Amino acid sequence: MAKVRCDISMSVDGFVAGPNPSLEEPLGAGGDLLHEWAFAAASWRESHGLSGGEANADSEVLQESIDSTGAVVMGRRMFSGGEGAWEPDPRGWWGDDPPFHVPVFVLTHHARESLVMKGDTSFDFVTDGIEAALEQARAAAGDKDVLLAGGASIVQQYLKAELLDELQIHIAPVVLGGGTSLFDRLGIEPLGLEATRVIASPSVTHLRFRVPARTT
Amino acid sequence: MAKVRCDISMSVDGFVAGPNPSLEEPLGAGGDLLHEWAFAAASWRESHGLSGGEANADSEVLQESIDSTGAVVMGRRMFSGGEGAWEPDPRGWWGDDPPFHVPVFVLTHHARESLVMKGDTSFDFVTDGIEAALEQARAAAGDKDVLLAGGASIVQQYLKAELLDELQIHIAPVVLGGGTSLFDRLGIEPLGLEATRVIASPSVTHLRFRVPARTT
Repeated sequence: MAKVRCDISMSVDGFVAGPNPSLEEPLGAGGDLLHEWAFAAASWRESHGLSGGEANADSEVLQESIDSTGAVVMGRRMFSGGEGAWEPDPRGWWGDDPPFHVPVFVLTHHARESLVMKGDTSFDFVTDGIEAALEQARAAAGDKDVLLAGGASIVQQYLKAELLDELQIHIAPVVLGGGTSLFDRLGIEPLGLEATRVIASPSVTHLRFRVPARTT
Repeated sequence: MAKVRCDISMSVDGFVAGPNPSLEEPLGAGGDLLHEWAFAAASWRESHGLSGGEANADSEVLQESIDSTGAVVMGRRMFSGGEGAWEPDPRGWWGDDPPFHVPVFVLTHHARESLVMKGDTSFDFVTDGIEAALEQARAAAGDKDVLLAGGASIVQQYLKAELLDELQIHIAPVVLGGGTSLFDRLGIEPLGLEATRVIASPSVTHLRFRVPARTT
């Protein structure tokens, strides 16, 4: 069966965004430093409609993720920031041609119509919880994987619900000193993972883990 | 000049000890899982007066740290747990032949006489702060490194004071769900590190970083 994966960039001190995120600086102070390896990668640039970039090992890791992803699940803040009703940016902040190129399911408490964007990205808004979103994403993904794009609370919810199969963390060489913690304090029993791959470059270390099924 | 280093095992979610540490279980719930790679290593076993173990890459990483360490700095809880005055265990919980085999400087608010143990380990108790402890440790280490053995708050204090030169984190494949966070929220400006080495085995990934001098 296709996997439920998380691929996420994290600082050495465990943050996926820096302090004080805002509509102007959604990744928070220093948050861009987590993604410099991706910004430089040819595969990232291509998925964002840009040319150039480096065809290096980091780019291959990202391309592999892109190729194996059939649908995306994300939180509402990752779609457009903020909370509450859908003003002032009903189309999100990913532009007319978002970099996903697959169906995206946005978890929210505020129902709205689907959006069909350029480049094969669509946004569906799911109001009945993480399992319903996953079910829709699985159906859309076919035999490809469902990617949890973030934010941290979405990853935490799926991990706690034992719905996450694989976790790939891209550790960027930066200490952010604060921000949004990927794991926070999950409050679960100690959970052993299986380390399945490590790929390192000077810019980032890609750690991949299989999350075993639990028998609780 | 000899370096000030930290070598520490950490969970994927950033903890160096599990929840609810006690005198009976000083590493907290699940904390042993952080050190399984070390317990299995020939070099760790030798430093603890045991025979056997595996002579693998993990063992070499640990041996390298042992060979380059001339003195150790640790916090009071790492010496013997607890707080306040020095009862009930005035000799700490490392036994008569502690695994350090170099002078150890223990940061504490409670002055006491030095202890000389078997196997070249001594404990000196430093009450006038992290810089004083480092000065004494540097003098004792000669041209070898000063190792910050922990706990987390000691590492945080030296990192914030810009006194840490190198950070090696051994990432164990486990999510602890809570406990003692290595970095917590340091509240410093984003600090770029230089990734200098990655060594991976199925049991652990050793990430090494140089901490650049700051010009604040």
